[in-house]
Amino acid sequence: MDTDPLPLLEDLIRCPSVTPTEAGALDCLEAYLRSAGFHCERLVFSDKGTPDVDNLFARIGKSGPHLCFAGHIDVVPPGRLEDWAAPPFAAFQADGFLYGRGAADMKGSVAAFATAAADAVKAGSFTGSLSLLITGDEEGPAINGTAKVLAWMKENGHVPDHCIVGEPTSAEKLGDTIKIGRRGSLSFDLAVAGMQGHVAYPHKADNPIPKLARLIDRLAAYKFDDGNDHFDPTTLAFTTIDVGNPAGNVIPGRAQARFNIRYNTEHTPDTLIAIVRDACARIEEELGGTFTLDVVNGADAFITEPGAFVGVVLDAIEAETGVHAKLSTSGGTSDARFIKDYCPVLEFGPLNTTIHQVNERIAIADLRHLAGVYRAIIDAYAGRKPA
Amino acid sequence: MDTDPLPLLEDLIRCPSVTPTEAGALDCLEAYLRSAGFHCERLVFSDKGTPDVDNLFARIGKSGPHLCFAGHIDVVPPGRLEDWAAPPFAAFQADGFLYGRGAADMKGSVAAFATAAADAVKAGSFTGSLSLLITGDEEGPAINGTAKVLAWMKENGHVPDHCIVGEPTSAEKLGDTIKIGRRGSLSFDLAVAGMQGHVAYPHKADNPIPKLARLIDRLAAYKFDDGNDHFDPTTLAFTTIDVGNPAGNVIPGRAQARFNIRYNTEHTPDTLIAIVRDACARIEEELGGTFTLDVVNGADAFITEPGAFVGVVLDAIEAETGVHAKLSTSGGTSDARFIKDYCPVLEFGPLNTTIHQVNERIAIADLRHLAGVYRAIIDAYAGRKPA
Repeated sequence: MDTDPLPLLEDLIRCPSVTPTEAGALDCLEAYLRSAGFHCERLVFSDKGTPDVDNLFARIGKSGPHLCFAGHIDVVPPGRLEDWAAPPFAAFQADGFLYGRGAADMKGSVAAFATAAADAVKAGSFTGSLSLLITGDEEGPAINGTAKVLAWMKENGHVPDHCIVGEPTSAEKLGDTIKIGRRGSLSFDLAVAGMQGHVAYPHKADNPIPKLARLIDRLAAYKFDDGNDHFDPTTLAFTTIDVGNPAGNVIPGRAQARFNIRYNTEHTPDTLIAIVRDACARIEEELGGTFTLDVVNGADAFITEPGAFVGVVLDAIEAETGVHAKLSTSGGTSDARFIKDYCPVLEFGPLNTTIHQVNERIAIADLRHLAGVYRAIIDAYAGRKPA
Repeated sequence: MDTDPLPLLEDLIRCPSVTPTEAGALDCLEAYLRSAGFHCERLVFSDKGTPDVDNLFARIGKSGPHLCFAGHIDVVPPGRLEDWAAPPFAAFQADGFLYGRGAADMKGSVAAFATAAADAVKAGSFTGSLSLLITGDEEGPAINGTAKVLAWMKENGHVPDHCIVGEPTSAEKLGDTIKIGRRGSLSFDLAVAGMQGHVAYPHKADNPIPKLARLIDRLAAYKFDDGNDHFDPTTLAFTTIDVGNPAGNVIPGRAQARFNIRYNTEHTPDTLIAIVRDACARIEEELGGTFTLDVVNGADAFITEPGAFVGVVLDAIEAETGVHAKLSTSGGTSDARFIKDYCPVLEFGPLNTTIHQVNERIAIADLRHLAGVYRAIIDAYAGRKPA
């Protein structure tokens, strides 16, 4: 590929676009894509209690197949400036690395796929449509970003056939991991009511603590499943228990706890909530008390089954880097959780070893190889529309 | 008995002797006892971090048998003055009751046994020695009160043969309950160390919450003993669990809890600590983790076995009130926990239904019967020295 992604990445890093500020990063990217021939739309969305967020949708071509690259230009705060070897928004180079907040998460990928797309258009090697979905609200509440851009895309006839999110998925070397799904995340707030009393007369009180403790013991030891071909087993983790009773001679009237379940495609929120409710009911039978549950569904589990689309990406990675990528579903959530409701989606990007840390960086050679992989994907995708 | 305890009690209530203030109450009592022939010592004790406390020891007679009455003239604060039907330090009478902070806990008993002692001396019906141990630090930290007076008594040849504490032990009618022992109280601070991590990767963290939960489940269900002739079974109650982790996606590195054991004479602090340590060790074996324990011994369990002394008291109660008292060991701690190391001790006093509440009061008839019981005890005690 002829075009170097480094200058665009330097320009993007120099915009201090800490969530939810755009700080010129979208302007810079829009100018780049317009000059490459893309039609660009800036989409500012608002919602109660959250900051307004600026987003960008860019497309070239009107027919299918339509391949979309998704990413974000917002970054997490840099932390203590004095801990950085160079200012975090200076795009400083040293020892073959480009340093800066967002270098890996994920202005590097954005610069790489924008350059690859422009390069493919310039070479005339692409048919169908290419688009970029760029949000400024991935590190924030994720209310006014990708989810609303997707709804807008649907309304306006821009739903893609496939999507690649540029999240930094590589673990030890560029190309070693792509993510073809994510576990779901379900959070519970749990409270047990009892009756307050004096520790000297426990039979006159109703202590909620042992009830909560037995429930925790049961749930923490519960085996939800064995995982499956693409997923690790479902896991449950308690994150806090709080009674906050300072009086050493008083049995408290209430105890509360929170836990989170990371689940695979063997489960849905409904099957998990049923298991938890059943466990509560058993404790109520054994020890009495009344449990109340408050459930927040963070994200559904999903999988993009390996097939032609995943094959195109694996082949492109191997051709450019010589590495055969592992198909993974581990880790936290990303905006892929929204995209999976519209089209098959996978995630591939640079090393994630320095993200959210001081001295975040990307190897300049990796950045160029990453652009090469994206370019190879575009060529192969246009050549044979994947199933 | 010829002497009415009411005037002395009115005088005592009119002294607002909220812990640790003496407020004239000891002066008033000392004057009363001196005029009855008692030799009086005022004992002011000090200790780091606690207020100085004024105490009174009064004795008449030099030979045995030596019967001591113990009590306190300090009272708990009155609370909201506007909630009282009459000012709490006015010794207001209504409907046969004397109202006032300390009327039942325990200036009523102090007035009753001081009057009974003076009456017995005046009647010449007493041989041996009678003494009064009166502290101003029972409702406070109990550092500069009864414990130090007892040490002083030992140094000065005043250790009694038997002691009666005037705590309000009656539950429904005067004379229905005497306390011949108390359960012990042992408190534990418990912490479990683990390793912090992200909820999405529980295998990379070491969550202390399930370990603590299983320990709580085990200890809360543990049967320490069946009780014995004089005591209810030993009980354990958790009072708090605290993690204080606000982050719903973070597994915490530490969890802590507190619990209290109320134990009978089947156990000692050592046997209890061994049981708890053993339970911790089993959880460490089953689930890993490291438990640390911090133990505070509140009071040892003790019993004054029923015998001649208890019999004298039961007979006097029945003769004066017609009620056959129940022998109890229930309830919280009192200064009897210190006295039991010097001589057999029991507790008997008025109804405890209004203590520490607004409109604390004592029935004037009960006050006079109470003095009558104490007088009958003195007579019987002198007549036949109990075993």
